[in-house]
Amino acid sequence: MKKHNFYAGPSILPDSTIKNTADAVLNFAGTGLSVMEVSHRGKEFVAVMDEAQALFKELLNIPDDYEVLFLGGGASTQFCMVPYNLMKKKAAYLNTGAWAAKALKEAKFFGEVVEVASSKEANYNYIPKNYEVPADSDYFHITTNNTIYGTEIKEDLDVNVPLVADMSSDIFSRPVDVSKYAIIYGGAQKNLAPAGVAFVIVKKDILGKTGRDIPTMLDYRTHADKGSMFNTPPVLPVFAALQTLKWLKEQGGVAAMQKKNEEKAGLLYDEIDRNKLFKGTAAKEDRSLMNICFVMNDEFAELEKEFLDFATIRGMIGIKGHRSVGGFRASTYNALPYESVKALVETMQEFEKKH
Amino acid sequence: MKKHNFYAGPSILPDSTIKNTADAVLNFAGTGLSVMEVSHRGKEFVAVMDEAQALFKELLNIPDDYEVLFLGGGASTQFCMVPYNLMKKKAAYLNTGAWAAKALKEAKFFGEVVEVASSKEANYNYIPKNYEVPADSDYFHITTNNTIYGTEIKEDLDVNVPLVADMSSDIFSRPVDVSKYAIIYGGAQKNLAPAGVAFVIVKKDILGKTGRDIPTMLDYRTHADKGSMFNTPPVLPVFAALQTLKWLKEQGGVAAMQKKNEEKAGLLYDEIDRNKLFKGTAAKEDRSLMNICFVMNDEFAELEKEFLDFATIRGMIGIKGHRSVGGFRASTYNALPYESVKALVETMQEFEKKH
Repeated sequence: MKKHNFYAGPSILPDSTIKNTADAVLNFAGTGLSVMEVSHRGKEFVAVMDEAQALFKELLNIPDDYEVLFLGGGASTQFCMVPYNLMKKKAAYLNTGAWAAKALKEAKFFGEVVEVASSKEANYNYIPKNYEVPADSDYFHITTNNTIYGTEIKEDLDVNVPLVADMSSDIFSRPVDVSKYAIIYGGAQKNLAPAGVAFVIVKKDILGKTGRDIPTMLDYRTHADKGSMFNTPPVLPVFAALQTLKWLKEQGGVAAMQKKNEEKAGLLYDEIDRNKLFKGTAAKEDRSLMNICFVMNDEFAELEKEFLDFATIRGMIGIKGHRSVGGFRASTYNALPYESVKALVETMQEFEKKH
Repeated sequence: MKKHNFYAGPSILPDSTIKNTADAVLNFAGTGLSVMEVSHRGKEFVAVMDEAQALFKELLNIPDDYEVLFLGGGASTQFCMVPYNLMKKKAAYLNTGAWAAKALKEAKFFGEVVEVASSKEANYNYIPKNYEVPADSDYFHITTNNTIYGTEIKEDLDVNVPLVADMSSDIFSRPVDVSKYAIIYGGAQKNLAPAGVAFVIVKKDILGKTGRDIPTMLDYRTHADKGSMFNTPPVLPVFAALQTLKWLKEQGGVAAMQKKNEEKAGLLYDEIDRNKLFKGTAAKEDRSLMNICFVMNDEFAELEKEFLDFATIRGMIGIKGHRSVGGFRASTYNALPYESVKALVETMQEFEKKH
């Protein structure tokens, strides 16, 4: 039976990423050696790193005064690297979920943190609007997609201070005006690559202004100066990222992705709104195109476990909701085919008929 | 033609690590999904992480009051995490090479650093002895194997302060008395796994004593408390590490490895000492069993490029020495078969006959 991979992350990757990586684990670029056992200084991997950076820039139309970095450690390490590198005295954070709150917490090690708004009181089921960012903030930090709660900031914000965005779970899902951001970062394990590499898009002239001493590995300049090759990079995750970037280009790039993502999410949200058994949990205007959260309608609450089993035996994987929201979560990342969403919708319809 | 992989790192891995990883990239643990696209919270990967930690402890006979951590970011990140977590006022470092010097440099961000001895004046071609470690040092840091220069501290030192060792390039090459160390750490990309994961063996009661605020991801306690699952770990590198740990056990463990490594290194060092064309660069008593550095004898200096080509067309890969030593370096990590060393020795003999 075909499996439909709705995991929230690590999550589904394109077939070509998987096949090409498996091939390279056995024989990388005709070397006769595994991609896991070649020097990162060898010409074959240097070519991979160079092409990955170039394609990353091309696909997101990144201006020349930005660098694209591939770093180890995941997005969680970025939660402290951002303030380490940018905060002089004060930073502003928008609290839209558990990951946003974790980022905010790390900033407190480095200075004053202003939480400009929070939707915590509503279990983060919406994106706050109409807040004010203090003009003397060194930067303003947002989490564009909130994986756990299924909310998303789907437009590039206009703010009066440098904008920093964690786009771990919606990078490459839509065109982004990178020039509006000082830094965009994220873990790669949703729309890009297996876990083990983080990407950082950084405007070079924002760096080196805090007067703070920064340990070498935590200083973005270290990695920008060396093209992400200061130390041994996570070779295989970077190789896999390149395969996904090539696939993205073949698919028509991020504009084409956005269209497909809107179709997939539209299909599932329509069914959630139509089906008498289910209801969505996020405010409609803030619904994420990447993580679609829904629960049983109150009068059918006792059917939750039954539906999970019903869907699981039909090949749906990873649709159990995060414990802090409950119910179900279908993650519909770039690589998830329309057919998988259709299969889930049909499962929901079949289950409705049963009850 | 068979390739002989002498890369210094990332470097040769066991055939079973490569084969099992390629298989899991296509279908992990019978899930029908790639190891690159499954949740790290799923029972299949949790089992991998648990078994990897358990086998790591078993193979090195690690006492119960230590934790084994698998972290992103490589050994270079450990250069600042060690002082972040351990240094109150003063730390002592032994400067045995470029990596030791980098570790020492990071410690200076956190307090007073005493360089107890250095072999830099001799291009690090020996391990200093007869130094004194200040009794009020919070810890003493050594780099057990110096990949670039081919020197190695092959015994566990007795010191009067907590001992911290970077064992990036000789972990699992010999039995280690872990109880003599407060922390042993390293990048995995020599004897363990592909690049993208670092291991840290840490004695729990050494932590939390500095009074310093530590960003969450840089605090060893974060990862110790969560079994290296605080954030998404580098899933595929950890999976590959487990395959190597299983292979190590099948091979008879670290004592058997030491015997094989001594045989391999002995074969090559004997040839270097015998062959009129070559000479070793490291002091004999400090010669590394992992990285064997040699150059042309002075009267044959002009043959260097010719030998490199001669060896390359015979399948030798990665034997060009690091630019700071020159000549040749054959890395003879655990997974390198005896036959590869034999092939290199025969190449050296053939080249000698030619001249």
